[in-house]
Amino acid sequence: MRGGNLKVLVVYDITDDSLRLKVAEILKDLGLFRIQKSAFIGEMTSQERENMEEILRRQNLGPSDRIDVFPICDRDLKMHSQIGRGKFGRGPP
Amino acid sequence: MRGGNLKVLVVYDITDDSLRLKVAEILKDLGLFRIQKSAFIGEMTSQERENMEEILRRQNLGPSDRIDVFPICDRDLKMHSQIGRGKFGRGPP
Repeated sequence: MRGGNLKVLVVYDITDDSLRLKVAEILKDLGLFRIQKSAFIGEMTSQERENMEEILRRQNLGPSDRIDVFPICDRDLKMHSQIGRGKFGRGPP
Repeated sequence: MRGGNLKVLVVYDITDDSLRLKVAEILKDLGLFRIQKSAFIGEMTSQERENMEEILRRQNLGPSDRIDVFPICDRDLKMHSQIGRGKFGRGPP
C-alpha cells in the first residue's frame, strides 16, 4: 500500500474453506481492503502486484478454484456502483 | 451485449441461496459471461448498464448483501490476471 497508484480488485472463488480464509488473510496482510466476502481492493505498485500474484500462485488451488486480479484505473473506479448496503471493512470504494 | 464498448464486472455477495441464483440468472439473461460463481463480466451501453442496475436495485437484498458494478476499460482488462484454472462459461477475459 505504499507508493504507486495502481488500484487492483482481487476476486476469488475458492471451494475449500480453510484455503479461502488463508487467501483472505494474505490479501489483508498485503494491505488490501475487503469489500465483499471474496473481493478485496487495494493500491499497490506493479512490483507489489507481482509479489502478490506470486504468493497467490503458490497456494494449493483446486481445479475449479480461480482468483482474478483486475487493475482498475481511477476513472473507472469513479464510475463504480454499489447496490445494497453490505459493508466490509473500511476504505475505498 | 449490443453496441457500446463499456465493459463491466459485476461481483456480488448475497447470503440467500435463491436470491443469489436469481441474480445470476438476471445477469446471464442480460448477456453477461460468468467468470466465477459470483462474478460476471460483459459489454454493454451506458443505458444497458443503468437498466441492469435498476433491475438489481429492485431485488430484495439482505442487510449484508452487496453487488458491486465496476466498469473496466480495455487497457485495464488487458492487464487482468487469472490465477488458478477454474473456468466458467465462455468469453472474456
